Amino acid sequence: MTENAKTALTPATHTTPPAKFSHGVKKGNILQVAGQVGFLPAVEGQAPTPAGPTLREQTLQTFANVKAILEEGGATWDDVMMMRVYLTDVDHFAEMNKIYNEYFEEQGLTAPAAARTTVYVGLPKGLLIEIDALAVLG
Amino acid sequence: MTENAKTALTPATHTTPPAKFSHGVKKGNILQVAGQVGFLPAVEGQAPTPAGPTLREQTLQTFANVKAILEEGGATWDDVMMMRVYLTDVDHFAEMNKIYNEYFEEQGLTAPAAARTTVYVGLPKGLLIEIDALAVLG
Amino acid sequence: MTENAKTALTPATHTTPPAKFSHGVKKGNILQVAGQVGFLPAVEGQAPTPAGPTLREQTLQTFANVKAILEEGGATWDDVMMMRVYLTDVDHFAEMNKIYNEYFEEQGLTAPAAARTTVYVGLPKGLLIEIDALAVLG
Repeated sequence: MTENAKTALTPATHTTPPAKFSHGVKKGNILQVAGQVGFLPAVEGQAPTPAGPTLREQTLQTFANVKAILEEGGATWDDVMMMRVYLTDVDHFAEMNKIYNEYFEEQGLTAPAAARTTVYVGLPKGLLIEIDALAVLG
Repeated sequence: MTENAKTALTPATHTTPPAKFSHGVKKGNILQVAGQVGFLPAVEGQAPTPAGPTLREQTLQTFANVKAILEEGGATWDDVMMMRVYLTDVDHFAEMNKIYNEYFEEQGLTAPAAARTTVYVGLPKGLLIEIDALAVLG
Repeated sequence: MTENAKTALTPATHTTPPAKFSHGVKKGNILQVAGQVGFLPAVEGQAPTPAGPTLREQTLQTFANVKAILEEGGATWDDVMMMRVYLTDVDHFAEMNKIYNEYFEEQGLTAPAAARTTVYVGLPKGLLIEIDALAVLG
């Protein structure tokens, strides 16, 4: 086991993934966060539950879920190179940007903001947003 | 030419890409696998042919195609950090997860499973799944 | 501030991002280009304007926009590992490939072509293509 070994990043707050994948992995200075959605912290014996029906509730919870994985790997938002934002509705773009800006203002970044791609896809029923992230540490 | 030079990964089994891109590339310790679909091994003079019409057939063939590229670059599933799974139908999620779990159980991973994002998009007619992968070696 | 510090890549030609993200970022030897579309070079006081209504016009402008970010980070097309191409219409695949091939022939690559994934998603009204890119510098 070296410093470069691949490790899984599994915050205690997270629901169990629905398949054999990790919420995040880190190897060397690369940290990859799996697609996160707006699920509330896991409650044992309860199915994953979105933070609410609105874009704002789900987006803020999704950010919290991404951040928990970054922190589990010793990273911060400042280390994030790329955010991939998946929305289900083009009409959500302006509101998502507003929430995005407010959130990152509050986070007090000290490095330039990450790059980002936003596209419009299908997601499981009830979910309005999914985000994954690539970070480079160090 | 140094150890860090960018090299193309082109398994003999693979059909020629439909444009000027590589099935996989490796540079330094980073290996990127292009979007793979369920095409059977190439037969000269024959158009690319999916392994079958079912999600199971196409998913297993897609895994084989990704794996061939990883191996061409001296990598294994254990080196994969991120799998991006593109499905065409939300109703395929549960079945895909079942196939995904069975497949990776059989592969006998010794490192934590990769992170993953699954979204629902359009794909060329007849194709039900596409997967790409990012690996970090070493 | 070390050689590894994260820097934003902001070509003078580019329109201001619609939210708190960077058109490109570089950290160590990793360079990530945000999703680019076919917007013409920014004109102060004017809203972002696509290069034209056709796939050809938008694709070539998108390439130019990606390239400007690569160059801002001291990279070239040869350093690109992965291109993610988002189209809105499966029927655009053949034409996009033709434009893709012509463009990269003209660029005179000296390294193997990047890997690529193409999927079909929704994009804001009037946009036919979006591309992002991951590069590893040598």
